[in-house]
Amino acid sequence: MDTIFYNGNIYTMEKGYPNCSAVAVKDGIVMRTGSDEEILALKTEGTKLVNLEGKTMVPGFGDSHMHMLSYGYSLEKVNLYSAKCVEDTIELGKKFLAERPYLTWLQGRGWNQEYWTENRFPNRYDMDKITTDIPMFYTRACGHIIVVNSKALEVMGVTKDTPQPEGGMFDLDENGEPLGIFREAARDYVYNALPELSVEDIKRMVSNGAAELVKYGITAVQTDDFEAIPAGQYQKVIDAYKQLDEEGKLGVRIFEQCLLFKPELLEKFLAEGHYTGEGTPMFRIGPLKLMADGSLGGRTAYLDRPYADDPSTCGIPVFSQETLDKLILMAQKGNMSAAVHCIGSGSAKMTMEAIEKAQLACPKADLRHAIVHCQITDEELLEKFRSLNVCALVQPAFLDDDISIVEDRVGAELAKTSYNWKTLWDKGVCVAGGSDSPVIDFNVMNGIYCGVTRKRLDGTPEGGWLPEQALSAEDWLYAYTMNSAYTCYAENVQGSIRNGKYADFAVLDTDILKADPEDIKAAKVLMTVLGGKIVYERN
Amino acid sequence: MDTIFYNGNIYTMEKGYPNCSAVAVKDGIVMRTGSDEEILALKTEGTKLVNLEGKTMVPGFGDSHMHMLSYGYSLEKVNLYSAKCVEDTIELGKKFLAERPYLTWLQGRGWNQEYWTENRFPNRYDMDKITTDIPMFYTRACGHIIVVNSKALEVMGVTKDTPQPEGGMFDLDENGEPLGIFREAARDYVYNALPELSVEDIKRMVSNGAAELVKYGITAVQTDDFEAIPAGQYQKVIDAYKQLDEEGKLGVRIFEQCLLFKPELLEKFLAEGHYTGEGTPMFRIGPLKLMADGSLGGRTAYLDRPYADDPSTCGIPVFSQETLDKLILMAQKGNMSAAVHCIGSGSAKMTMEAIEKAQLACPKADLRHAIVHCQITDEELLEKFRSLNVCALVQPAFLDDDISIVEDRVGAELAKTSYNWKTLWDKGVCVAGGSDSPVIDFNVMNGIYCGVTRKRLDGTPEGGWLPEQALSAEDWLYAYTMNSAYTCYAENVQGSIRNGKYADFAVLDTDILKADPEDIKAAKVLMTVLGGKIVYERN
Repeated sequence: MDTIFYNGNIYTMEKGYPNCSAVAVKDGIVMRTGSDEEILALKTEGTKLVNLEGKTMVPGFGDSHMHMLSYGYSLEKVNLYSAKCVEDTIELGKKFLAERPYLTWLQGRGWNQEYWTENRFPNRYDMDKITTDIPMFYTRACGHIIVVNSKALEVMGVTKDTPQPEGGMFDLDENGEPLGIFREAARDYVYNALPELSVEDIKRMVSNGAAELVKYGITAVQTDDFEAIPAGQYQKVIDAYKQLDEEGKLGVRIFEQCLLFKPELLEKFLAEGHYTGEGTPMFRIGPLKLMADGSLGGRTAYLDRPYADDPSTCGIPVFSQETLDKLILMAQKGNMSAAVHCIGSGSAKMTMEAIEKAQLACPKADLRHAIVHCQITDEELLEKFRSLNVCALVQPAFLDDDISIVEDRVGAELAKTSYNWKTLWDKGVCVAGGSDSPVIDFNVMNGIYCGVTRKRLDGTPEGGWLPEQALSAEDWLYAYTMNSAYTCYAENVQGSIRNGKYADFAVLDTDILKADPEDIKAAKVLMTVLGGKIVYERN
Repeated sequence: MDTIFYNGNIYTMEKGYPNCSAVAVKDGIVMRTGSDEEILALKTEGTKLVNLEGKTMVPGFGDSHMHMLSYGYSLEKVNLYSAKCVEDTIELGKKFLAERPYLTWLQGRGWNQEYWTENRFPNRYDMDKITTDIPMFYTRACGHIIVVNSKALEVMGVTKDTPQPEGGMFDLDENGEPLGIFREAARDYVYNALPELSVEDIKRMVSNGAAELVKYGITAVQTDDFEAIPAGQYQKVIDAYKQLDEEGKLGVRIFEQCLLFKPELLEKFLAEGHYTGEGTPMFRIGPLKLMADGSLGGRTAYLDRPYADDPSTCGIPVFSQETLDKLILMAQKGNMSAAVHCIGSGSAKMTMEAIEKAQLACPKADLRHAIVHCQITDEELLEKFRSLNVCALVQPAFLDDDISIVEDRVGAELAKTSYNWKTLWDKGVCVAGGSDSPVIDFNVMNGIYCGVTRKRLDGTPEGGWLPEQALSAEDWLYAYTMNSAYTCYAENVQGSIRNGKYADFAVLDTDILKADPEDIKAAKVLMTVLGGKIVYERN
């Protein structure tokens, strides 16, 4: 054996053999699970022994939806999550820029006016206080709204005469002048003006990202990275991952959720021979990723009715039904599953309709379509997950923000059937945990805590919000391991600890299945193992 | 929709949605499961409606181990299962031959001296009473022992001077003359003398076999067919199945358990690019099949100790440990799982040792090795199934014969830990149901009945044999559907009824999950559906 982990409290996530104390590994594959006595007997010359000292070991976590490249990119951006007002964002930007005089663009992410004293969006005039020399932009926490400075408008060439784009908008002041605020598809004006990332940039960013992920026990991610580069340049991302894989430097297993939001882009991708599942144990092509709407906070999530707190809007559907139908049918025909971002009930219904049409037009066995987020739902939609066999890629820690706004946004009635992950679970729907990082922190303990307690991370409200929709810590652990693996067609090689699976583990300082739920969020990862190698140890 | 089945008592085998009344199918794939109201609403012009009239529908059965070609071949052979004495076998043969004057060889199968008044093997002199004009042979029910007439000995060229083969023997009388009885590897003398089957012969035989299988609700089989042809001629079998598949005439889904018992044969097969899972939804290459020992009835099953009722023998191991190790390692390296026939505890221990060595020498993710039969086991072996993650392909209806002999053969102590399928189940081992047809009848109801009641088919003994090893009817149904699918890497497309799986169903006249267990064996299949098409209806 290469390595034996022993003296542990090991949750295998295998129903027939849920607990053991030791695991033996060879060539990155689990060879045996059992008692210390059984497994230590397999020691040979050169076997590395790892004493788990009674700590809890679980399968490595799988994040079912995040943005690896954006997260790695974010490490090179101003972090605005702590900002409490517009002025904070200005001060943070000035400081970051002063320390990095080589920057040709300044970028930041994480502002959220919901938490600010002034509760308004920042605009170009605020941003000009940071710099008028180089272009800059700040992205809202949700990712769907961007604010730029005047220099950026100049570089982008956006003026009062620029037409509003389909599926998005940029705000104008009373004189019709751009305010520097770009929503949804309008963000492309900004992205298109950015200097292009090179393959080397991407490799650096995703490597830096992976190095952070393993500190949280995450060994596999489903990641939408094409969003971080101009449309059509996806080959750079694929090349970056393939090179890292060949160099043995890919820090976590990658399943690329391929954002290809135009039929001609998807057509090109499929014509190149790509399909869901293609690749190696470290890097595989995942589903077609689509964004069908925006965010709840920004009221761009598309509801099937007007917002309760702003009846002038239902939000913004990114696609017409026709385009969505076309894209999902192309994916279905091309043996790609589709994973569609739907926060609102309107976009989810459109997506379910498109999936239903595609399944009927081109019946295929075992295409695992998914809806990402699955927030605002009604009974009919919840049942569609079961009847169309659609996976739910959810972010339980979104409750931390959304408990505060969901009833305001959608009204008490629709809220009651929203974030109804227990209902989905009981219907047999595959509910897989994730973070949507960098939208929120990818710390799995936050997700499990919110999912178990139905509370914000600060422990409020007492008793939790819709507590009957709580799942147990064990269920959430399953959601972040086996179910996450299932949604990337990897349930037979990842997601549990047994003979013949990849040796991907996380060691925790807390037995989260037995701990007081309030203690889950403070649980720390002590060690992470990927393919049998210890890739992280907490000091 | 192409077809809607409604008004049924449908067991889906899906844990989150175990029951429904209607299923909609398109292009051979399940589109929806639900209530009659929900599913009938999907009716379109041209939809065929099938009223199940309240009957029980389950996923089509998967037989995890049988011999399709031998079974089809057996339809062209004298059926000896009803013979009660040697004279019966003679009369049956004479009648069969008289009706088929064109036969150049007469063949028969199914004799079992355990049930005879004289309780002795037939010999050449008995067989000569059938014919001395053409060669003939009769195979014992177990398949491991053959008796021939004198003409056959002449054609085969076997005399008193012929050497005994490795791994088998032929019986001699007191003068050293062959008695016409050939055991294990000695059967090759007979097989080698037979005229070769053509691809057309094979197509006819497997088609005839499939036509019988669907009458019992069987829609998928794992089948060892290479045993029925001379070593090395496997391409004929593959060609026959491929041609039937292309012609749309393959009556059940086939997963070929490839009997390649010599390293050079396996090497050739792997060099041709074959691997487990290769193929189409109707015909795929399965595991390497090996026979590591013989039968319990014939005392050729290899025990790890002497037979209790014949301490002169432990049975016959077919392979040396070295050869077995070599074969299984070659399979492991070639991405073939191995399914090894082991009835005795000795052969099973040798096989587990070979699997353990292969896993360590060449760690691979998700290779699903299996032991076929899993009859005589001790605690250590049972635990090996779990720790090495080896599937158990079992034939619960073997209890019908074996209850009568197991304690005599292996002694009461070893018998107690034998046929311990509940213990395996509780350890999380994948236990898949099968028949080994034509060794015994493939009627799944017999298997479920024996597995639930632990009785012979005649209802004896009262209370069942080792009743604590019974599994419920629901568990056995799972074993014959989902688990059987799992053992051929098809659990995501077969084995349950849900959106995105093949529309393979069996409709029964009895609700076997709610019926008195005594009524299970009489349950009849009313209808069988394969890929959405009704392929059998009971008149």
